[in-house]
Amino acid sequence: MPIIEMHMMEGRSGELKRSVAAAVTEAVSRTLACSPETVRILITEHGAEEFYVAGQTMAQRAEQRRLAELQEQGK
Amino acid sequence: MPIIEMHMMEGRSGELKRSVAAAVTEAVSRTLACSPETVRILITEHGAEEFYVAGQTMAQRAEQRRLAELQEQGK
Amino acid sequence: MPIIEMHMMEGRSGELKRSVAAAVTEAVSRTLACSPETVRILITEHGAEEFYVAGQTMAQRAEQRRLAELQEQGK
Amino acid sequence: MPIIEMHMMEGRSGELKRSVAAAVTEAVSRTLACSPETVRILITEHGAEEFYVAGQTMAQRAEQRRLAELQEQGK
Amino acid sequence: MPIIEMHMMEGRSGELKRSVAAAVTEAVSRTLACSPETVRILITEHGAEEFYVAGQTMAQRAEQRRLAELQEQGK
Amino acid sequence: MPIIEMHMMEGRSGELKRSVAAAVTEAVSRTLACSPETVRILITEHGAEEFYVAGQTMAQRAEQRRLAELQEQGK
Repeated sequence: MPIIEMHMMEGRSGELKRSVAAAVTEAVSRTLACSPETVRILITEHGAEEFYVAGQTMAQRAEQRRLAELQEQGK
Repeated sequence: MPIIEMHMMEGRSGELKRSVAAAVTEAVSRTLACSPETVRILITEHGAEEFYVAGQTMAQRAEQRRLAELQEQGK
Repeated sequence: MPIIEMHMMEGRSGELKRSVAAAVTEAVSRTLACSPETVRILITEHGAEEFYVAGQTMAQRAEQRRLAELQEQGK
Repeated sequence: MPIIEMHMMEGRSGELKRSVAAAVTEAVSRTLACSPETVRILITEHGAEEFYVAGQTMAQRAEQRRLAELQEQGK
Repeated sequence: MPIIEMHMMEGRSGELKRSVAAAVTEAVSRTLACSPETVRILITEHGAEEFYVAGQTMAQRAEQRRLAELQEQGK
Repeated sequence: MPIIEMHMMEGRSGELKRSVAAAVTEAVSRTLACSPETVRILITEHGAEEFYVAGQTMAQRAEQRRLAELQEQGK
């Protein structure tokens, strides 16, 4: 250990995944003073309709903010 | 929190995912009396050969039930 | 399936856990039109120093808000 | 229960997944003396850039070993 | 990999955990033809009120079966 | 997102957990160029008999290494 599972939105490049994995491994081994060889990282990606905050997708929330702003401007 | 990870069989529509996420968020925030904004849901889908009960896929179990019924009728 | 893992802060009563599990099971079986018997729920609790937003515990964030409010009032 | 989530590298055949699920179910029900019907297995696959040891993908580690061997031979 | 997370009910002895981990590792490395050294197992335990089937704890379900049997006998 | 679940051996201090969470949050938000406010971290601890490599606990592996060294010295 440590074993780290990172849930991320789908679509990031391989290069970006490699760099976040390297940065997280460095952060963990530095702060926990453990060998990088003991640090394993699993990335699990989720599509646009597989992640919800307050029961809404990110697209639904963005649309809601857009409408709220329009309404605000309409005052 | 709460952070909720829902494992489901592959193939449900985006609409169905949105409705189950909304319903679960409502159920959680109502019963735990927490703001919906604190509720995050991750959906992870699994293919037909990625979910097993008693070491069998759902297709294998359905086939087994079918054969058992045939055998039952054959008596 | 579905198999649902709920991560929650430590400390909720057994009664509250039973009621959120029942409510989530009802919401899932209603919206996905699946039998409640197929719905499994796992609750995993996390202590105060096992959940972080923006790298801070909930206590650290509350303290930060308190100080910000004091500063705001001091103006 | 038990509910078992198996994280594996992408690419194994359906047949291999079925055989590992059956073997794990047998091992669990034998050693825990529980009915196979209570054992559920979820398989989650990860792509080449979704699994890291010491901050590197398996391909990066293999390349590093290859270079180290070349260097070793060059002495 | 593979990395295997086993969710189990609380209360099993250390000895039983060691034997199920050894049996699962053997089953996985045999069927996937991978070295045991690549197989990691995490056990996560859940209390009586942290695992639900059809919205009920195992105790609630056992009580329900008991009452149904009594009713059946009462006929 | 991202939502990060860190599995670690039991026993680290609250202070160490806070520092690894802050370091991982910084590493993730820097490399993925996302706001720290979107980064959530869950820590799940595992006891000595809840983490296995090659079917053995860390204590079993340490004992095995010790015996192998003794044998090596005995030659």
